[in-house]
Amino acid sequence: MKQVYLDNHSGTKLDDRVYEAMYPYVKDFYGNAQSLHSLGNKSKEALDKARGQVADLIRADISEIYFTSCGSESNNLAIKGVAEAYAPRPCVQERGKSKGSPSSCVQGRGKHIIVSSIEHFSVLYSARRLEQAGFQVTQLPVDKYGLVSVHDLKNAIRNDTILISIQHANPEIGTIQPIQELAKIAHDKAIIFHTDAVCTAGIIPLDAKKLGVELLTLAGSQFYGPKGASALYIKKGIRIIPQVDGGIQEAGRRAGTENIPAIVGLGRASEIAKAEMETNNKKIVELRDRLMSELPKKIDYIYLNGHSEKRLPNNVNFSVEFIEGEGMLLFLDEKGIYVTSGSACTSKALKMSHIMSAIQVDAAIAQGSITMTLSKYNTDDDIDYVLQEFPPIVKRLRELSPLYAYFKKTGKRQEAGPGTDYEHHHEHEETE
Amino acid sequence: MKQVYLDNHSGTKLDDRVYEAMYPYVKDFYGNAQSLHSLGNKSKEALDKARGQVADLIRADISEIYFTSCGSESNNLAIKGVAEAYAPRPCVQERGKSKGSPSSCVQGRGKHIIVSSIEHFSVLYSARRLEQAGFQVTQLPVDKYGLVSVHDLKNAIRNDTILISIQHANPEIGTIQPIQELAKIAHDKAIIFHTDAVCTAGIIPLDAKKLGVELLTLAGSQFYGPKGASALYIKKGIRIIPQVDGGIQEAGRRAGTENIPAIVGLGRASEIAKAEMETNNKKIVELRDRLMSELPKKIDYIYLNGHSEKRLPNNVNFSVEFIEGEGMLLFLDEKGIYVTSGSACTSKALKMSHIMSAIQVDAAIAQGSITMTLSKYNTDDDIDYVLQEFPPIVKRLRELSPLYAYFKKTGKRQEAGPGTDYEHHHEHEETE
Repeated sequence: MKQVYLDNHSGTKLDDRVYEAMYPYVKDFYGNAQSLHSLGNKSKEALDKARGQVADLIRADISEIYFTSCGSESNNLAIKGVAEAYAPRPCVQERGKSKGSPSSCVQGRGKHIIVSSIEHFSVLYSARRLEQAGFQVTQLPVDKYGLVSVHDLKNAIRNDTILISIQHANPEIGTIQPIQELAKIAHDKAIIFHTDAVCTAGIIPLDAKKLGVELLTLAGSQFYGPKGASALYIKKGIRIIPQVDGGIQEAGRRAGTENIPAIVGLGRASEIAKAEMETNNKKIVELRDRLMSELPKKIDYIYLNGHSEKRLPNNVNFSVEFIEGEGMLLFLDEKGIYVTSGSACTSKALKMSHIMSAIQVDAAIAQGSITMTLSKYNTDDDIDYVLQEFPPIVKRLRELSPLYAYFKKTGKRQEAGPGTDYEHHHEHEETE
Repeated sequence: MKQVYLDNHSGTKLDDRVYEAMYPYVKDFYGNAQSLHSLGNKSKEALDKARGQVADLIRADISEIYFTSCGSESNNLAIKGVAEAYAPRPCVQERGKSKGSPSSCVQGRGKHIIVSSIEHFSVLYSARRLEQAGFQVTQLPVDKYGLVSVHDLKNAIRNDTILISIQHANPEIGTIQPIQELAKIAHDKAIIFHTDAVCTAGIIPLDAKKLGVELLTLAGSQFYGPKGASALYIKKGIRIIPQVDGGIQEAGRRAGTENIPAIVGLGRASEIAKAEMETNNKKIVELRDRLMSELPKKIDYIYLNGHSEKRLPNNVNFSVEFIEGEGMLLFLDEKGIYVTSGSACTSKALKMSHIMSAIQVDAAIAQGSITMTLSKYNTDDDIDYVLQEFPPIVKRLRELSPLYAYFKKTGKRQEAGPGTDYEHHHEHEETE
C-alpha cells in the first residue's frame, strides 16, 4: 500500500546522508568525548564539528551552542535556567561560604515571566513549575490566526519581568510570530527573550542575531536529523543555571555523556538544511498550496486554521465540520496516510488542543481539526493520493454524523453540548 | 596497530545485535510513539518492549521503568525529583487553586539528604544544587577501600532526612557497596534510598526488590548499548517531581519525544546482558585477575586501589608511584591502549579525582593512578599486549622522574610539595 507521511512535525525521516555521517560513531568511534586518548579525541572532534555546523545554521557563534537530548529539555533549560539565574535567590549558607556573604545572597531582578498561550507544553509546564516555586507567569492571548500582539506584550511587561518566551512558529497551525519585533520590545526593557524555534530551525532561514533573541531552541528530528539531539542557543553573557548537574560537558551547562552519534547527526542535518532548504521549500510550498487550495474545492464546510501567509512552508491545518479528528485519523491510517489532529480523542491526554482553544475555534469545529506537515520527501503523487482518498473519508464520516444529519435537515448547527466538549467531558490527565 | 580499549566505563562498544535491533527504528520506523497512526504505533510497541526488557534485567515491574537520556539525567531526576516531592513546599498560590488551600501547601518531611563522598558528580552536584536551595546535605566518608560504613550511615540519619543516595559500585576503584544492608537502615527510618547502579546494571546480577532500593539508575552505554538512553527505576508509590516538564511521555515523569532507536538499543542490550553476563564475567574476571596479579610482578612500587574482593569484575585500578597519570595515558595511547586516570592533569576539570581524596591516597601517589575497565570484547591477547607494553612505559617515565631519582639516591620519598598537589595548584573549574 502507498504510504504518505504527513506528520513531519512529530518527527522526520532520517536523511540517508545524515545516517552515513552518524554510522562510524555508532559502530566504531564509541569513545567518550571527555576521555584523553585517541578514541576520545575522535569523539571530541566530532562534537566540535557538529557544534560548528549547528552554529552556522542559525548564524551563531560556536561557543553559543549547547547540546541537550531533545527540544523539551532545551525549553526546560531555557525557562528554568534563566529564571533561576535572574530571580532573587534565597540567602542560604553554601558549603565553603560564610553565611550572609554577598555571593551567597545575590539580589536578582524579579520573578515574573511572560509566555504565549500557544507555546509547546515544555514551555507552558516549565512556567507552571516555576509558578509553584513562587514565580508569576503571564500567558499572552493570541488572535484568531494565532498571532501574539506587540501591544499585548508591551502591556504585560512589569518591572519584575525577567524572561519572555514566545515560539517562533506553531507546530499545529503553522503561524509564524513576529519575533524580531517582539524581541525588540523585550530589549527596550532589558528583558531576556527566548524563542522555541523547533518548528522553524532547519526549515526556514534563521539568524539568531537578527531575530535578536538571547535563547533559541532547535531540534534535529524536525529537519531530517535523528532523535536524541537538540540544541539551545545561549547568547554570550547570558547566565543560566544547569538543569542536569554533574560533569563539565557543554561548558558545565549540561552534564552527561554526550550522545555523539545523535549530535553528529544533528550537525550534518544542519549543514544539509542550510544548503538545501530554499530548494526544498519551493517544492514543499507548492505541495502545501495544492492541499490548501484543492481540499476546500473537494470538501465543503472546511476551514483553514492559522494564517494564510505568516505560515510555515510545510504546515496545513483544516477544521472539517460535523466530524471528529479521531475518525479521520483512523480512516486515513487505513489508506496509509499519517496525520495528526487537535481533537481531544486523538490526544493521549484526552484534552482538546490548547492551540484550538487559544485561537477560539468553536469546540465542536476544533474536534474536526487535522494537521498535515510535509517534508522534502513528499511528492506530487502523495498529494494526488491525499486529494483522492481524503474527500470520500469525510463523506463517509459525515454520513454517520448526527450533527451533519441535523444540519442537512434544519440548515442549523446544533449547540455544542457536553458530549462534544471533550475538554470538560474527559478526565484530565496531569503530567505528574 | 593493535588497539586495546580498557576505558569501558566511559562507554562500551555497541554490540552488533543491539545495532541490528536499533537499525529499523533509525531508518524506517521513525514515527513518534505518541502519534496515533500505524507508524506511531510501531514506535509505541518498541517502547513497551524495551521497557519490559529493562524491567527484566533488574527484576522490576514494567511500570517502574522510566527512560531518560543518560545516567546523569537519571541521577538528577532521582535526587532533585524526590527532594522536591518530599520536602516542605512553599505556600504559594497556584493557578486555579485558592490561596492557602491545603493542597497548595503540603507539609513535607524535611530537607536533609545523605550521599557518599565518592558518588558520581551528577549525584554530588545535584545535592549541591539542592543545598543552594536550602537543603542540607551530609557527605558520608568512606574507608581506604572506598566502603561506606553502616555505622556512619546510622549516625548521619536525622529526623528530617528524606533521601539517601549511595552508589552501587564505583567506576574508578570498582568498590561494590553493601547496598542491601545500607538500604535496610534507611527503611527502618522510612527514608527513601537511591542507588546509582550505572557501573553494575548489565554487568552483575541485580534485583531491585532484593536490594531494597526505591530508586536505581542504569545506563545502556555501560553494557554494550547505545549512548542516549538510560533508565530510572522508581518503585511503585514513590512520588517524584519531573525535571523535564512538558508532554505526557513516561507517564508524565519525563517529557520529550522518546529517543526510540536508543531505547530499543537499551532494551536489547538489557536482554543480552541478562542472558550472557555470567559467561562474560567468567572470562572478564580471569583477564582482570591477570592484570591484578601480573602487573605488580613486573612493576615495583605499584599499589592496588579499591577492595580486592568487593570489586566490579571489570575494574582494575593501580597507583604507580613516582610518575603521573598523564604520561602513562599518552604513552599507552601511542601503543593503542586506551585507559583513564584519576590524576589532575588528565581530568578536564584539572582536579585530582575526588575518589582518590576520599580513600585518602597520598596526593603524590594519586597522581600516578590508572583505571582499566574491561569488556567482553577484551581477549587474552589484549592482556598479553598490556603486560608487554606497560612496564617499559613505567620504566621510561621513572627515568625522567626527579621524584624517582631522589628515591633511588636517598631511599626516601620527597614530601608532596605545591608542584605535585594539583588540587590546589590548578585553578578550579566550576560546573557553572
